[in-house]
Amino acid sequence: QRYCSQCGKPITQRIPPDDNRLRAVCEHCGAVHYQNPRNVVGVLPVWQDKILLCRRAIEPRYDKWTLPAGFMELGETTAQGAMRETQEEAGAQIELGPLYTIIDVPHAEQVHFFYLAKVLSEKLYPGPESIEAGFFSVEDIPWQELAFRTVSTTLEHYIADRATGVFPMHHYDIPYPPPR
Amino acid sequence: QRYCSQCGKPITQRIPPDDNRLRAVCEHCGAVHYQNPRNVVGVLPVWQDKILLCRRAIEPRYDKWTLPAGFMELGETTAQGAMRETQEEAGAQIELGPLYTIIDVPHAEQVHFFYLAKVLSEKLYPGPESIEAGFFSVEDIPWQELAFRTVSTTLEHYIADRATGVFPMHHYDIPYPPPR
Ligand SMILES: [Zn+2]
Ligand SMILES: [Zn+2]
Repeated sequence: QRYCSQCGKPITQRIPPDDNRLRAVCEHCGAVHYQNPRNVVGVLPVWQDKILLCRRAIEPRYDKWTLPAGFMELGETTAQGAMRETQEEAGAQIELGPLYTIIDVPHAEQVHFFYLAKVLSEKLYPGPESIEAGFFSVEDIPWQELAFRTVSTTLEHYIADRATGVFPMHHYDIPYPPPR
Repeated sequence: QRYCSQCGKPITQRIPPDDNRLRAVCEHCGAVHYQNPRNVVGVLPVWQDKILLCRRAIEPRYDKWTLPAGFMELGETTAQGAMRETQEEAGAQIELGPLYTIIDVPHAEQVHFFYLAKVLSEKLYPGPESIEAGFFSVEDIPWQELAFRTVSTTLEHYIADRATGVFPMHHYDIPYPPPR
């Protein structure tokens, strides 16, 4: 950030009074511009014994497989955002279940949320953000071609919990950037 | 937002190609400025049988009682943010426990997270954002003077779970603004 979004004048990086971090401060109008982590909201959609994955048509991780997910928008809940992303990326009809994984990803300045969901129809209508969408049995998950560690760890929890039939919420951190 | 934070020129509100929402778009440099919900991270700190509350020295809800909580910062996890806020607002030494409540508050464009924690010393050093901080037995919680519904509902869950000795994560929405 180089200019004030309120008045258009150049900003200064300094620690405001009663604060302890560098902020983008406007000396002209007095505005302090805060930056905060963003939430990514998504779904683990299950059709019979298979899991819905989408192949990304956008960066980052173009061509890799992901669970439907994207940035949470103003005015929606995490659940509403997760349903919207499933619609946008897969065109899947789902019945949303409970919140399942909550994952802190501090190096990406994000928190990820994945809901369990039941897919109601095998018909998919992937949107422009997906090359394709399809159903994978657990044996066929393309582990080496998954886009994000929040996706692979959510799938790992699901497979482990399926053995017990109990799907509690899981909260954990992914504290380091991925290996190159 | 009225000006581009990248180049300082006035912005236009329009729906970009391949999008479906009004965004702050800069026709000069092409930047699209997204806005996203923010996370509030806090703690339910327990000393023996008592709960630590802080009386707010800042708006909104000046003079009302709250659990230590504040906006999550870039580069930290929800847990790190919750510990930081407890230090800043109460100066309490704590041992952080598990994530306890996750609360969607869409009208405020926020998601709130509260962790359980054990207070390690009765000594408190409230910071400038608190008028005072103190310990309350369940019978003495000032229900009518609590600052936020995310605080009162987190306390209600805690009191109910204390009866069973099990403290699972709770996820719920507060879908409507508070009554005036
Ligand atoms: Zn300004
Ligand atoms: Zn610009």
